[in-house]
Amino acid sequence: MTEKVKIAIDLMGGDNSPDKTLEGIDLFIQRNLNLNDYFFYLYGDKDLVLQKLKNLKFLKSNYELIDTKIIVSNELSPIAALKKGKGSSMWESIQSQISLNTDVSLSAGNTGVFLVMSKMILKMLEGIDKPALAGLWPSDKGMSLVLDLGANIECSEKNFIDFSEMGSALYKSLYPDEDIKVSLLNIGSEELKGTETLKNAHLKLKNLERTGDFKFIGYIEGNQITSGESNVIVTDGFTGNVALKTAEGVANFLTKNLKKYLSENIFSKLSIVFSYFSLKKFKNKLDPRKYNGAIFLGLKGPVVKSHGGIDSLGFSYSVELCYKIAKGKLIDKIKANLSHVKNLNEKG
Amino acid sequence: MTEKVKIAIDLMGGDNSPDKTLEGIDLFIQRNLNLNDYFFYLYGDKDLVLQKLKNLKFLKSNYELIDTKIIVSNELSPIAALKKGKGSSMWESIQSQISLNTDVSLSAGNTGVFLVMSKMILKMLEGIDKPALAGLWPSDKGMSLVLDLGANIECSEKNFIDFSEMGSALYKSLYPDEDIKVSLLNIGSEELKGTETLKNAHLKLKNLERTGDFKFIGYIEGNQITSGESNVIVTDGFTGNVALKTAEGVANFLTKNLKKYLSENIFSKLSIVFSYFSLKKFKNKLDPRKYNGAIFLGLKGPVVKSHGGIDSLGFSYSVELCYKIAKGKLIDKIKANLSHVKNLNEKG
Repeated sequence: MTEKVKIAIDLMGGDNSPDKTLEGIDLFIQRNLNLNDYFFYLYGDKDLVLQKLKNLKFLKSNYELIDTKIIVSNELSPIAALKKGKGSSMWESIQSQISLNTDVSLSAGNTGVFLVMSKMILKMLEGIDKPALAGLWPSDKGMSLVLDLGANIECSEKNFIDFSEMGSALYKSLYPDEDIKVSLLNIGSEELKGTETLKNAHLKLKNLERTGDFKFIGYIEGNQITSGESNVIVTDGFTGNVALKTAEGVANFLTKNLKKYLSENIFSKLSIVFSYFSLKKFKNKLDPRKYNGAIFLGLKGPVVKSHGGIDSLGFSYSVELCYKIAKGKLIDKIKANLSHVKNLNEKG
Repeated sequence: MTEKVKIAIDLMGGDNSPDKTLEGIDLFIQRNLNLNDYFFYLYGDKDLVLQKLKNLKFLKSNYELIDTKIIVSNELSPIAALKKGKGSSMWESIQSQISLNTDVSLSAGNTGVFLVMSKMILKMLEGIDKPALAGLWPSDKGMSLVLDLGANIECSEKNFIDFSEMGSALYKSLYPDEDIKVSLLNIGSEELKGTETLKNAHLKLKNLERTGDFKFIGYIEGNQITSGESNVIVTDGFTGNVALKTAEGVANFLTKNLKKYLSENIFSKLSIVFSYFSLKKFKNKLDPRKYNGAIFLGLKGPVVKSHGGIDSLGFSYSVELCYKIAKGKLIDKIKANLSHVKNLNEKG
């Protein structure tokens, strides 16, 4: 008998919580009815949560509700939140990895505070000096992982190598059957392009190739993020964040314009009737809620951040992400990968 | 009587040239039939060009063809190209700003070589130490300008301020009736976010506001590039290049998927018939060929780089861009703007 995956969830973070978070968990269970496979530790204001719980269809057993009255607000700075945040639903959901041996923690609350609290409670993995925020992007060949998406605005070559190892481990835990192709995001594919830091990281990653369980394919450019030729794309948090948000902006801009033109006259409106199911499939495949959830890498325990403004369906995919990375033994895989780097460093 | 705008064009750069470049000029004339308003100096291999010229409808007069036998290939490094490039169509089209007093130079050839040659021949404007590559992006409110798109991978705060002044001058020369709203691309809109360089530039630009002829609106994030709240968006060449290429990649990815789903069955195919004109308008508005052409800013003369792989329609919009910035007195406007910075520096 395998042990259940223990998922700790901050019910109070993000917009419309705890309704959104509870409905999200309910949707996750609806899609994954094997109740013997996971167990939830839920942190939130009992009075609010119990009211909502009555109306849910699937979240009936396999959970424990822990009453927490303090909520970390979105307006607090990380420093203020650390002072006031002990005992909050966010704090306790992270702390449970120590006290209750839970496997993973999830919150839709304030990103900066969640990152700082996680670092403080879980501590960094040995040898890692900067954590990274990793997220999924759809591509021509399935899904790709991009990191860092904003945890560090400046990165060293060591960070880039750590991100490659940790990102590969994460990808493997999510998609065990895929070959991993790591790349560095740059502004040209020639070896002489880019910053000195990138060039040095490129050189070292080429040597790692022999020991790591991933293939380093070199540099890629921004237009190749969606091509799928690389499925683990490494960059600094400034560039990664700009790329992610630019992509969001362009996607919104295009769909907004498409809608505008398709509803401009009776013929184009009629066309929507004929293409209804196709357009729905298109929307469905590219629905950003399906890859909601960023993973903090570099800590001794896995921590997932859901978008604060996402709805319950989006939150349910963050729950799924938690389940998958715990099931896929993310932290064991990261440790195994980091031993490659350590060996490399010791060899000189 | 006003003087004609003198446009110097390298006919040989880019794919399918000189056919593409000549057809592009022809298309430009077709759209702008006032032949008294511009004159072309065309640089290329006379034998190849004359053959093609016979078949063109509009490019019949108002040009001078200068025979150049050397072509700068795409494979050459800037250093090698400088050695071999003297007397090439690219070199001569830039040199004509000195020898023939032409107003602007255009090429679809090797970007790196074109930039280095331009710097060598035209020299930098007084007080500018780095040139920037600026390009147009469609937005909810019209067009925006983003710079630098790849000329400098690292930038100082002085560069950011120079880019703001030069970008504003360029925007004003293209869209004289628009109010100019300059922003710095960052990963958050709060003043405490971003690199030290960005924070220092932010502080200085806030003070410039009183003297410059643009409004500085602070930081924007990647998803706001297409929103139009800022129309001159300043960033370093690394970030700008990644943002531009990521946007291209996402746009391709979405349209490819949309096409796929719309042609999957008879109903969705039928829908294309009904939405044909609306989809065409959509495509037309967002056609990247319409804003083809990046402008090198910071040199004593204006220089425009067309995408090498673009077709003749795309090239015709680069010709139009040349015409507009020469007509809009770009260099005079840049000099006027830079005097603000100079005054600021002298004040302390």
